[in-house]
Amino acid sequence: MIKALPVFHNNQYNKIIRQATSSCEFSPRKTQTLVPEPTMSSSVGLIIPCKAAVAWEAGKPLVMEQVEVAPPQALEVRIQIKYTSLCHTDLYFWEAKGQTPLFPRIFGHEASGIVESVGEGVNVFQVGDHVLPVFTGECGECRHCKSEESNMCDLLRINTDRGFMLNDGKSRFSIDGQPIHHFLGTSTFSEYTVVHSGSLAKINPLAPLDKVCVLSCGISTGLGSTLNVAKPKQGSTVAIFGLGAVGLAAAEGARIAGASRIIGIDLNPKRFDEAKKFGVTEFLNPKDQDRPIQEVIAEMTDGGVDRSIECTGNINAMISAFECVHDGWGVAVLVGVPNKEAVFMTKPINLLSERTLKGSFFGNYKPRTDLPSVIEMYMNKKLDVDKFITHRVPFSEINKAFDLMLKGEGLRCVIDMEK
Amino acid sequence: MIKALPVFHNNQYNKIIRQATSSCEFSPRKTQTLVPEPTMSSSVGLIIPCKAAVAWEAGKPLVMEQVEVAPPQALEVRIQIKYTSLCHTDLYFWEAKGQTPLFPRIFGHEASGIVESVGEGVNVFQVGDHVLPVFTGECGECRHCKSEESNMCDLLRINTDRGFMLNDGKSRFSIDGQPIHHFLGTSTFSEYTVVHSGSLAKINPLAPLDKVCVLSCGISTGLGSTLNVAKPKQGSTVAIFGLGAVGLAAAEGARIAGASRIIGIDLNPKRFDEAKKFGVTEFLNPKDQDRPIQEVIAEMTDGGVDRSIECTGNINAMISAFECVHDGWGVAVLVGVPNKEAVFMTKPINLLSERTLKGSFFGNYKPRTDLPSVIEMYMNKKLDVDKFITHRVPFSEINKAFDLMLKGEGLRCVIDMEK
Repeated sequence: MIKALPVFHNNQYNKIIRQATSSCEFSPRKTQTLVPEPTMSSSVGLIIPCKAAVAWEAGKPLVMEQVEVAPPQALEVRIQIKYTSLCHTDLYFWEAKGQTPLFPRIFGHEASGIVESVGEGVNVFQVGDHVLPVFTGECGECRHCKSEESNMCDLLRINTDRGFMLNDGKSRFSIDGQPIHHFLGTSTFSEYTVVHSGSLAKINPLAPLDKVCVLSCGISTGLGSTLNVAKPKQGSTVAIFGLGAVGLAAAEGARIAGASRIIGIDLNPKRFDEAKKFGVTEFLNPKDQDRPIQEVIAEMTDGGVDRSIECTGNINAMISAFECVHDGWGVAVLVGVPNKEAVFMTKPINLLSERTLKGSFFGNYKPRTDLPSVIEMYMNKKLDVDKFITHRVPFSEINKAFDLMLKGEGLRCVIDMEK
Repeated sequence: MIKALPVFHNNQYNKIIRQATSSCEFSPRKTQTLVPEPTMSSSVGLIIPCKAAVAWEAGKPLVMEQVEVAPPQALEVRIQIKYTSLCHTDLYFWEAKGQTPLFPRIFGHEASGIVESVGEGVNVFQVGDHVLPVFTGECGECRHCKSEESNMCDLLRINTDRGFMLNDGKSRFSIDGQPIHHFLGTSTFSEYTVVHSGSLAKINPLAPLDKVCVLSCGISTGLGSTLNVAKPKQGSTVAIFGLGAVGLAAAEGARIAGASRIIGIDLNPKRFDEAKKFGVTEFLNPKDQDRPIQEVIAEMTDGGVDRSIECTGNINAMISAFECVHDGWGVAVLVGVPNKEAVFMTKPINLLSERTLKGSFFGNYKPRTDLPSVIEMYMNKKLDVDKFITHRVPFSEINKAFDLMLKGEGLRCVIDMEK
């Protein structure tokens, strides 16, 4: 099932190995490249040269480069990325405003692919498996993984500052011996990438990779925040703050759960038309109101909505999302990530009158355990994914995806790695 | 089963009726006293003169008075109070610091009693039923009562400002025609009182009234905040902020739920010895620490407790209680009521890392529906109530109960109405 891999002459290998090992910190292990496994695909155990879109500087267009991708080490998997899509988190760290810049780096974390080879100790995956790499992992051994409630794995939890692989603290990417930093342990803006096996979900091989790629981050984050965390009952009223891809996925969750009213709140009225496709029944623009939006919502809903989901990361929206839920049973779920200085504030009486405030992370999905079931929701036509994909570009034009997102156009732009 | 009631001559009735009706706002209805029901107890339909401890002024000792208690109107029940206990809420509104003063008033809301007579339309209760009056009611008809999640009845929810009965906006208590305000719809510091039938729980007649009286407010509040809201699993770690009666009842809930560690936090180390009886295994005094108590707790518990319950009402304790729970699965429950100016503040990341913050009211028990099951927990020896009762006084010495509470001595002082 996997695409034929490039065939290298020994000289090429030697050059690659020599160049790679010239960097002391990020060099791939020489021994791994010298002992290929003859029983697996022809590239197993070898460095793979391939195309990757490299971010050399903050905010500057990605540059298509030939990178060398080292073989997977213990508990790692090397995958061929088939489709990837751009998520705001890529943009945020690429812009590196207020973040610690880490360049050069290969961004990308929302993707689908096929296993090319596996490292030592990887039993769950086999060459040819269809997979989604995920920005946060599941080691299966820690307290979080063993908890029924958490998906915040101690070992593989999202780490935006880490630019190397856990196994040896080095990168699997290099260009002429210069290591290129990883991003979120996925770096899917590359034809091949290496991920920890705990950050990979094996999915139904019949699922179309050009569509389900968007389920590896944003859509599942929104969907799960409703279905797994807010848990609205049939006939509930639900408010969604922010009608971007994550918010609309939260709305899609509310639609699937059978909510009777889904109230969408956004500062951009252009989003309202699109939102109707996701089951949003009413729209509110806080700019049109002369009083706090939570008061407007309470009036519209006889005291407040049953559930609210905050997907903007704006601290005032967070407070409104909490204060707009009904006393006695209302549950507000926070999804959006605010800036570090933001402080959530509310009067305790809003809590004491039996409201619940919950934070959510990746929709509370355990990536390895739960993502396959999200794929099945799509396969069973319960979840509609197609409407999230508003644009497609070939890999060679990946910067167009950044332009679209910077302009606020569309929801998800899928990047076809084979074009 | 009910105690023989005083027999009145007609002249006495007339005098009472005349005096009562001289007050335009709170006068009992004359027609009700003139049409006694001959099939029920001898006092049915008549005004009952009896002893009550009246608060004439804020913070001044209660005065034992002879009050007239009018018959119950539609959907009301008149009960003979057998035992009552003092709760901080009584003290708080008696002191009336920062509250709207409402005097003269008959306080008291934690009690047990026996139904003396019922008003029109009351089908659930019969003369002789053993009951607990409750400061917050359950009409059975509103959205809250119909919700599985809420116990905050729209009609009968706690209202500390209301000094009259809902039916006619008047009081059932008077002294020489002067109406005396009700408190929380219960006013149990009186030998007889009138309550809305929705604010009354019918209980197992075998339950000892001198003990289960304490289950009508504080103990159930704490117990339910753990069992119904925090819901710790077997083997959990639980932190309890505030080791007064409510906090210790929350600890009792954690003990019943099978918590492996129960960490008690209080500024008063004298409470630690007593707390051991309630299953508290470790103690922390924030005064002994040179850093925020949530950091100390996180260190003690490898990242935080599974559940915390805040029973002090201090805003800093609320914030600590939230921030001391483990990420991924921690749930903090707020029970204590802070002052009106207090603002709850926390960094959103504390929420986004999958912590839950819930407010609780009366332990989420629906008073009519759920309190009988709490009584059964006591009858089945699952719940130990006796250890909460540290003092007993005769009704004539009710002010001693206030003195004890003002000194911070003991947990619950039960007042015997027949002594």
